[in-house]
Amino acid sequence: MIDQKFIPKNDASLLRKAQALKPVLFHETVRPCRIFRLTENGCPDPDAVLPAGSPAIPLKAGEGLCFDFGNHHVGHIKIRFGSTGSHPDAPALIKLRFAERQEELMEDTAGYNGWISKSWIQEETVHVDLIPGTEVLKRRYAFRYVAVSVEAVSKKYDLVIEEVECDSITSAEDGRLPAYAPADPQLREIYRICLRTLRGCMQDVFEDGPKRDRRLWMGDLRLQALANYAAFRNNDLVKRCLYLFAGSRQPDGKLSACVFHEPVPEADDTCMFDYMLLFVPALYEYWKETGDREALEDLYETAQLQIDLAAAFLREDGTVCTELTPHVFIDWAEGLKKEAAALAVLIYCMRYAAALAAETGDLERESLLRKKIEILKQAALRTYYDPERKCFTDDGQAALALQVWMVLAGVVSGTEAAALLARREAFERECAMMTPYMHHYYVMALLSCGMREAALAHIRSYWGSMAAAGADTCPEIWVQDDPDASPYKGKAVNSYCHAWSCTPAMLLPAYFPAL
Amino acid sequence: MIDQKFIPKNDASLLRKAQALKPVLFHETVRPCRIFRLTENGCPDPDAVLPAGSPAIPLKAGEGLCFDFGNHHVGHIKIRFGSTGSHPDAPALIKLRFAERQEELMEDTAGYNGWISKSWIQEETVHVDLIPGTEVLKRRYAFRYVAVSVEAVSKKYDLVIEEVECDSITSAEDGRLPAYAPADPQLREIYRICLRTLRGCMQDVFEDGPKRDRRLWMGDLRLQALANYAAFRNNDLVKRCLYLFAGSRQPDGKLSACVFHEPVPEADDTCMFDYMLLFVPALYEYWKETGDREALEDLYETAQLQIDLAAAFLREDGTVCTELTPHVFIDWAEGLKKEAAALAVLIYCMRYAAALAAETGDLERESLLRKKIEILKQAALRTYYDPERKCFTDDGQAALALQVWMVLAGVVSGTEAAALLARREAFERECAMMTPYMHHYYVMALLSCGMREAALAHIRSYWGSMAAAGADTCPEIWVQDDPDASPYKGKAVNSYCHAWSCTPAMLLPAYFPAL
Repeated sequence: MIDQKFIPKNDASLLRKAQALKPVLFHETVRPCRIFRLTENGCPDPDAVLPAGSPAIPLKAGEGLCFDFGNHHVGHIKIRFGSTGSHPDAPALIKLRFAERQEELMEDTAGYNGWISKSWIQEETVHVDLIPGTEVLKRRYAFRYVAVSVEAVSKKYDLVIEEVECDSITSAEDGRLPAYAPADPQLREIYRICLRTLRGCMQDVFEDGPKRDRRLWMGDLRLQALANYAAFRNNDLVKRCLYLFAGSRQPDGKLSACVFHEPVPEADDTCMFDYMLLFVPALYEYWKETGDREALEDLYETAQLQIDLAAAFLREDGTVCTELTPHVFIDWAEGLKKEAAALAVLIYCMRYAAALAAETGDLERESLLRKKIEILKQAALRTYYDPERKCFTDDGQAALALQVWMVLAGVVSGTEAAALLARREAFERECAMMTPYMHHYYVMALLSCGMREAALAHIRSYWGSMAAAGADTCPEIWVQDDPDASPYKGKAVNSYCHAWSCTPAMLLPAYFPAL
Repeated sequence: MIDQKFIPKNDASLLRKAQALKPVLFHETVRPCRIFRLTENGCPDPDAVLPAGSPAIPLKAGEGLCFDFGNHHVGHIKIRFGSTGSHPDAPALIKLRFAERQEELMEDTAGYNGWISKSWIQEETVHVDLIPGTEVLKRRYAFRYVAVSVEAVSKKYDLVIEEVECDSITSAEDGRLPAYAPADPQLREIYRICLRTLRGCMQDVFEDGPKRDRRLWMGDLRLQALANYAAFRNNDLVKRCLYLFAGSRQPDGKLSACVFHEPVPEADDTCMFDYMLLFVPALYEYWKETGDREALEDLYETAQLQIDLAAAFLREDGTVCTELTPHVFIDWAEGLKKEAAALAVLIYCMRYAAALAAETGDLERESLLRKKIEILKQAALRTYYDPERKCFTDDGQAALALQVWMVLAGVVSGTEAAALLARREAFERECAMMTPYMHHYYVMALLSCGMREAALAHIRSYWGSMAAAGADTCPEIWVQDDPDASPYKGKAVNSYCHAWSCTPAMLLPAYFPAL
């Protein structure tokens, strides 16, 4: 029996403000654009595609249909059932499977044995008692495809699916998008799927991915917020999320890596070193975007506290003692060493903390932070820079992620930084990045060195390959040469609409507005 | 593709009257009286029984509890979930199994392969998204036991079932029961389970069994109505059901064997020879019980029509041509020959038709029927009575069911009939009765010959053995030496609260009031 209970430190005033900012959800009724028959093993049959509005197809046990809604949606489903033959004399037992990508319907989900709960798999088995009648599913799903198959039905009738309707939900408002669209076809497509991704993740909070966690993660939020400023501009939603983080924290004041917002807002007991720190740039960027002084004043202390709490884990030599810190995320890449990157993230976030201090006139703090940054920068160079290999290493490993964070932290800069980033392929061979989240920071590092061409080439190559693979939205994990990659040891639970992947929605208009 | 469509013959005026008689449903909130832990294979563990109100037990994947509500209920379930450990970070996937008898929870329901739909098995798999939170299941179930097991849950928390509540529903009103209870302990127990059975089946209509069909069957209704007159006396519910039958019929005017009442009243396309005829005694008995002249006038023609439509299947020699009639039910007994019994049921129902004609002053019809009865009685004796074996046979088979119907039809009577029924064991060896429905008619036949002691002995033996087996309600099928008997080739779908089994609720007070 687990009996220890984590008691988050709640601030009722901040949480009240967060709850007052609950967004309006916009609803759109969507109908399928085409229908596939399912093969015997439950896959959509490419040779049996029917246009929407085709005459209803009577289904016996073992048969089914897949409804394609034409794009990714987050929302609820209702199905109107009818029958042919005799009056239905027994319930129909149906199975529903929701898929963000068509390939998911080929997964052996029963065989999933990964380390996060299989309860995330979007499948339901439902008895339909009243036929004709309409079944409204209570849960929310993230999907483009809905496969409905008949598990059991009486021999006296065939089940007919007369209509499937999706109530698509988002707190993103298309009307607030800027008048921007890349002329370049590839970039236009990348921009489109990034917007769709952000839209799907904008719900009551900025969710990391609507298929699964459905909650606020700090690292994800920071990137979503940046994309949001350039796209749907629901700045109150960013504010709400910042208040949720600050309003429910770890008992010692650290920000949790994620916050639950239902049934009531509550911090998770998980803390991550880099995620707690990323609150600082997120607050700074929100302030610069909105000039919202109330938020700055409400959240400033919390932001500065994260720096101090993180700095408490520094060794005398100025390196981060990751044996004692909370988990450091950086990326899902397996085998990635994280001690040096943790220091780089701390320095990076300290710069934002200093800038925040300057904004509030807290000049003493600013000066203190600037001194500390210089000390840590020297520690980073001294400890992790390998003059022979001319790059940063951590326990002998020269991962690209590490170089990226050292560049972003300003530990190296200018031509030296540019030269480092130009050696990307060699570092990737040593430890490759796995998440679009880390790829975003790679692009940011390139841009910070003025390497616009390389940044654009990487957006084209990486996000372009998602678009080329037919994605409607950007996935949580994208490894170009390994489509089956999953940090969970089973891609049945992978999220294919994951907001940390949507940053070209900001990168393209901000850095390549003329393309 | 099934494309032929059965169009029932509806009478809007009769159906309107039926709908106006929709009963009030009474609700009672019931909580479990004890809780079992489930063993690894999902059975209630007799060595791990906890009293209700025990501290909540944290459950991991693979674990579960069985809640015993202490008696049979028909209704809805809601469950309040909580957790121990970290904040729930993934839905809980739970499986619910509802069982009328504890033994059902030991069934391999996945292996059920019988001929009626497995969609009748009372099992659900449900995702619980919000914890803490309350899950209200939409469907109605018939059960005493509810097993809840955890299929999947995140490793970060254990699921806790904080409260399970049943909203028990019936249109039977305890306050209307007569002040009657047998003093004899065995009879008191039989009476109790019969009342409980009737109560569970009294819903929007007299359902045959609340676990499964949930609809009106004629043969069942007739017996339920008789029990109801002696017990809950909801006579309007009987009236409603008679109107539902008459209000939606086969295209040629025959009464269907069963009628659906949801989503709208509609006859099933199934017709059964004996079931269509049993409307006649059911109407007669309703009239005698209530003196409701409106019903008599509205339904008289329909009743008489059933006799004429059935008589149209008579051969010139006065026997029933069962190759042409709708299916004849009589009993679920396998191998039972039914031609002779069909004639006996026709004669039996003709007697009620004649009595109905007398009640309405339709004396010409009465006289015609009496003459016809005499002719058919002679045909029955001539064709089916074997003077050597001194019993009725059908194609060489001397089943007890046949003797019973011949006695009830008055084809034999007095000491001759009594002598026939006294040879029960020999006839049972030839083809044994399988349903309490047929056992009821056996008891009625005994009583019609004045064999009160034998009738009582049979009630004690047959219904007493159900009670001795710990039943809370009377099952659809009860074969004393074969507890696994199922007419469906799989007892997972057997109904254990089936109203055609409840007639001792009437037999005991009517025939043995002093015991």
